[in-house]
Amino acid sequence: MPATTRGRAGLFLYNRRAAMNVLLLEPDELRDGHAVVRGRRHAHVRDVHRATVGASLKVGVVGDRLGSATIVALDDDHLGLTVVLDQDPPPPLPVTLVVAMARPHSLRKVVQQATAMGVKRFVLFNCARVEQSFFTAGAARPHELAEELRLGLEQARDTILPTVEVHPQKFHRFLVDVWPSLGAPALIAHPEPGAAPCPRGLAGPTTLVVGPEGGFIPAEVERLRALGTLIDLGPRILRVETAVVALLARLF
Amino acid sequence: MPATTRGRAGLFLYNRRAAMNVLLLEPDELRDGHAVVRGRRHAHVRDVHRATVGASLKVGVVGDRLGSATIVALDDDHLGLTVVLDQDPPPPLPVTLVVAMARPHSLRKVVQQATAMGVKRFVLFNCARVEQSFFTAGAARPHELAEELRLGLEQARDTILPTVEVHPQKFHRFLVDVWPSLGAPALIAHPEPGAAPCPRGLAGPTTLVVGPEGGFIPAEVERLRALGTLIDLGPRILRVETAVVALLARLF
Repeated sequence: MPATTRGRAGLFLYNRRAAMNVLLLEPDELRDGHAVVRGRRHAHVRDVHRATVGASLKVGVVGDRLGSATIVALDDDHLGLTVVLDQDPPPPLPVTLVVAMARPHSLRKVVQQATAMGVKRFVLFNCARVEQSFFTAGAARPHELAEELRLGLEQARDTILPTVEVHPQKFHRFLVDVWPSLGAPALIAHPEPGAAPCPRGLAGPTTLVVGPEGGFIPAEVERLRALGTLIDLGPRILRVETAVVALLARLF
Repeated sequence: MPATTRGRAGLFLYNRRAAMNVLLLEPDELRDGHAVVRGRRHAHVRDVHRATVGASLKVGVVGDRLGSATIVALDDDHLGLTVVLDQDPPPPLPVTLVVAMARPHSLRKVVQQATAMGVKRFVLFNCARVEQSFFTAGAARPHELAEELRLGLEQARDTILPTVEVHPQKFHRFLVDVWPSLGAPALIAHPEPGAAPCPRGLAGPTTLVVGPEGGFIPAEVERLRALGTLIDLGPRILRVETAVVALLARLF
């Protein structure tokens, strides 16, 4: 996608689609209960929220607590806030989301939506039906992933940034090098006869594995079968981004 | 959005995002087990599936059964198929999805994703926090809604087209004129203290009500409280399109 289109898409996303339900501050922006904000967040509060001096806003500090801010200054240059942090962020989901690197459009949606739902660790991997260009696409670059994480936090009113690991090595190397770090029992979403229906209302930590758009190839399924439980959402084929939301909602 | 951008977005959607997991035929296209297909579906089979004569495809007839087709002709003009219908479409969800008219971008996603998940009746309504322009946006026009329905069916390999009712009248009129037609017990997604956690694994018919992006206003909540059960997905604020998928996945 050319840079200009991407720029317009970004603007569109920011202005019209992503709700900034919390204004996120970096820890070093908050000094003695006061913060000064410029750029995107300043413009959003002024032009989308149409807030004025004296108004109250939901705020949060990345990696810290939530609270409220009162606008003490607002002009064309900056937004001045007094901040009280008095609330914990919502609880995370006890899941590591292990997803085959998706095409850019899907990747953005998966990361943003799963972040909004409370995922705190993403592991993106390679396998036979992943197009290698997905790993070099703009959407897979750290700063673009970070933008989706932030949009997800702002949407859900959360402050705890997830981590995203990108593992482009071949699948069998991934299973040797990375799989042991995943820890929790694995549920592998793979529709096939004999897969268990997706369980409901899990309490404990879980590793959820979601394959590429075309599914895992048989050799990969055989490897995974030994490493976890194959689960299934039913006979309907869903897009990766829809399936991830549906799986998280049903599991937790 | 200007027509050219919409055109490009449509092309992008069709080429790269929507998987045509079933080729849908209209009932009158199938004669004596043979069908001739031109246009979008012909181009998709030739250029995306890169299929050739002799290959097999999943097909379905709108409103009827699924099956398989063998390609007996394929040139620049048309695709010729012999068709055997031998499979029922996947079961629908027993739900009427009643959603506040959403902004165009969200509306498309809600309709397409919920169709893929098996919703067969959509009821789109008006209330205080719905922008009136949403009702006249391109995405709300019948042929654009129909396109999303079809993309949802093609994604999920389903043949049964949902119905979409659009009710632009004021909310109190909607409750008088339309609500009685909804029938099944209503669950109303509205995060507030005292709302019940969203139930899991319902079997019976349900009416699921999802409000606008900014939520229902208090007077609307009071009316709805008397008509159904308020439910809640937890403390995180989700986009309408994410919430709809999450609610459907948890409820059914």
